[in-house]
Amino acid sequence: MATKAFAIIAGVGPGTGASIARRFAKAYPVVLLSRNSANYEPLVKEINASGGQAVGISADLSDSSSVKSAFEKIAQRFSSSPLAAAIFNPGGGFVRKPFLELTEQEFTAGYESQGKGGFNFAKNTLPLLLKATGLSFPPTLIFTGATASLKGSANFATFASGKFALRALTQSLAREFGPKGVHVSHVIVDGVIDIPRTKEWKFEHEDAKLSPDAIADTYWHLHTQPRTTFAFEIDLRPYVEKW
Amino acid sequence: MATKAFAIIAGVGPGTGASIARRFAKAYPVVLLSRNSANYEPLVKEINASGGQAVGISADLSDSSSVKSAFEKIAQRFSSSPLAAAIFNPGGGFVRKPFLELTEQEFTAGYESQGKGGFNFAKNTLPLLLKATGLSFPPTLIFTGATASLKGSANFATFASGKFALRALTQSLAREFGPKGVHVSHVIVDGVIDIPRTKEWKFEHEDAKLSPDAIADTYWHLHTQPRTTFAFEIDLRPYVEKW
Amino acid sequence: MATKAFAIIAGVGPGTGASIARRFAKAYPVVLLSRNSANYEPLVKEINASGGQAVGISADLSDSSSVKSAFEKIAQRFSSSPLAAAIFNPGGGFVRKPFLELTEQEFTAGYESQGKGGFNFAKNTLPLLLKATGLSFPPTLIFTGATASLKGSANFATFASGKFALRALTQSLAREFGPKGVHVSHVIVDGVIDIPRTKEWKFEHEDAKLSPDAIADTYWHLHTQPRTTFAFEIDLRPYVEKW
Amino acid sequence: MATKAFAIIAGVGPGTGASIARRFAKAYPVVLLSRNSANYEPLVKEINASGGQAVGISADLSDSSSVKSAFEKIAQRFSSSPLAAAIFNPGGGFVRKPFLELTEQEFTAGYESQGKGGFNFAKNTLPLLLKATGLSFPPTLIFTGATASLKGSANFATFASGKFALRALTQSLAREFGPKGVHVSHVIVDGVIDIPRTKEWKFEHEDAKLSPDAIADTYWHLHTQPRTTFAFEIDLRPYVEKW
Repeated sequence: MATKAFAIIAGVGPGTGASIARRFAKAYPVVLLSRNSANYEPLVKEINASGGQAVGISADLSDSSSVKSAFEKIAQRFSSSPLAAAIFNPGGGFVRKPFLELTEQEFTAGYESQGKGGFNFAKNTLPLLLKATGLSFPPTLIFTGATASLKGSANFATFASGKFALRALTQSLAREFGPKGVHVSHVIVDGVIDIPRTKEWKFEHEDAKLSPDAIADTYWHLHTQPRTTFAFEIDLRPYVEKW
Repeated sequence: MATKAFAIIAGVGPGTGASIARRFAKAYPVVLLSRNSANYEPLVKEINASGGQAVGISADLSDSSSVKSAFEKIAQRFSSSPLAAAIFNPGGGFVRKPFLELTEQEFTAGYESQGKGGFNFAKNTLPLLLKATGLSFPPTLIFTGATASLKGSANFATFASGKFALRALTQSLAREFGPKGVHVSHVIVDGVIDIPRTKEWKFEHEDAKLSPDAIADTYWHLHTQPRTTFAFEIDLRPYVEKW
Repeated sequence: MATKAFAIIAGVGPGTGASIARRFAKAYPVVLLSRNSANYEPLVKEINASGGQAVGISADLSDSSSVKSAFEKIAQRFSSSPLAAAIFNPGGGFVRKPFLELTEQEFTAGYESQGKGGFNFAKNTLPLLLKATGLSFPPTLIFTGATASLKGSANFATFASGKFALRALTQSLAREFGPKGVHVSHVIVDGVIDIPRTKEWKFEHEDAKLSPDAIADTYWHLHTQPRTTFAFEIDLRPYVEKW
Repeated sequence: MATKAFAIIAGVGPGTGASIARRFAKAYPVVLLSRNSANYEPLVKEINASGGQAVGISADLSDSSSVKSAFEKIAQRFSSSPLAAAIFNPGGGFVRKPFLELTEQEFTAGYESQGKGGFNFAKNTLPLLLKATGLSFPPTLIFTGATASLKGSANFATFASGKFALRALTQSLAREFGPKGVHVSHVIVDGVIDIPRTKEWKFEHEDAKLSPDAIADTYWHLHTQPRTTFAFEIDLRPYVEKW
């Protein structure tokens, strides 16, 4: 893995993150970050076995020292490679409950994962993206949003406050680093994604769940946009989704 | 032009509409609509000369009988072909002036072009999109928005009221026809487009104008999304644009 | 009616418009505009009988010559009085139906009433508001919005395109005339209003309909704001309304 | 201070918080919360000297045990009084700097103050508001927002992520507790406020700064709205402000 541009995908479970990793691995060696190595190990094997290059590194994005340590490892392995793209996609597992039953720890978990996690990821990837040269496409930093990025529903205070904070961060980054040539985007995923965890969820209509591979195709499209024509935000939902 | 799927692009001048037409002409025979035949004739020649198929039809989209007549011609030529995509992209040329100097006719011109024009285009394309079968991608109806779709600036009452009305229409169509399998999208083009008319406009930074070809690539990407993963709205702007 | 400041309320049926008229009539002589004199006659009598001053004038706001004629009558009666406030509140009665069943006339009715109506009302009131002096509060121009000002729901293309256009207009006016001292506001009324027409509509919860008098109190509050502290937009809804 | 309804204002410096406290003190005994007793002491004296009733309590809203202790003191003093209104208004003092120069602590300060602070305040006031009876107006919980509640500008990542998180929280609370009769509102203060700290800031136009007393009048108006007609959000800005 010498001078070829590489990509980093943070938040790689069996869902969207894996599809994004597979999509970007068609073009770049990929670094997969996840808190738990069990999340990335099968995917690292799969990508390496099918002709791509993947490395997994454990990191808790809400912990700045853990992130620092992960990026030191990245720096060692990709010392002479430019960073082409960085994707922030850590999931939720957030508690959904009546507000008065929320503990302070439960409430702040949304911000820890999304706000602080997004901060640590941006803080460590932006210096690499800014100095990247020789890329086929502008260096790209994409964050995954959700319905809760735009609407604070009842019982969703935790998730929504984290996702709103992340969106604020991404807007601020797009306005600061866009003019420096870095493409910062925010993708609003509005609906249930078709992943192992939602396999059993039945809907009235077929195709009512978002396809992780189709989501990944849109991330890739964003990455390929020239700097004359950057998208900041796009919303994705199944054709039958109410919104 | 027998059973092969075709596409319709409305609003084909020398800018974005032409790029969209060229992009969709790589996959489909295209029908180009414009009020003035001078707008589409060079493009029709160019596409036909380079291996594609294009037909130009004159139509004033704000005039329902003119639109009806154009679609009768389309029905004759493409009687057995399914409609794969329809793009609404009529330009502006709207007057920008202090509100108290606007005549009623100047003010309503924004709505005539965008609101009523969008209505007539949707009214005539949706029946074709709904009955289209055998397509590679879901039937698609895309409308072009602008900065003024989201913000009514001083002196922009005409343009903004037209573009707001168009966005309302597209949201309503997406919610009604999405569940019927038609992909309705709205693209917010936020900035100056690099077309002949803006050739002389100089900016501090290079690449400060939107590329019509890159805009067209995004329209094509929207068209290729599966129904599990429809985007409704995406914003496009140059990397140095203030927003 | 000599030099005392006066107010104009357009769209005075038995609902919100009447409550606004009564509220502003506590402070000012009021001119009530409505297409149909039957709409304002009982209210004119009521206000005059209870110590206020009211005049009714018939006008179709979507027709510029009708509006011009109405404002000539206003100019005669209030030649030396400053205009303190003007309220745009024409109702809907818009058709709600599947898009493909909408005629062009049905679709454009939303814009005629709201977009063009708002234009004609602003065009005739702003010159009076700009030259008003000796007022207790900044001259004020308030427009009534609705849920459909922010969201184009399925089957609401007519109403939403009209209300979106009106909101675009009001934003543009606020940005142009705010710095000239005119307070332009847009009130989003989100829910069913408790008026004679909705008397029989039953809801699960009590107090589930908006109070026209409470809406009017908010219009009055907006009117009293000093120019240091203008509100542009406020949303009003019953406590049990879903949003 | 027996059974008379009272109000709590959090974030009471020499600016908006003080004006809100003075306004609500015309109707209710008020509890003033601030981290630093120097912030509320002059105001407590002033209100008590002018015929009102005020108590100051030191509390760090971002620290749940500090808030708990403050509300125990409140419970003792107002054991038999219903809570009529609670206002969350802690200021910023947030660092504004290029993103890559922000420390994690500087970045999270925005969330600590606004997100976690808002959580702790809501957690302790909502149980009191829910059980309040015999009030003149619906029990009310108002949060102060800012321009940065809606837009993440370059160099404002800290402030915007905190204010976005707070807005998410308030939306979620309004949707959960509105139907239970509590009026939850969010006021967007868009511009420079005329307070001692901004005294020397000069603008081209007079009256270009928001009046804290006028802001307070709007908070009071929100408090008086009946449950049929709750406002969730209102934006306030000087007449010459660009937006």
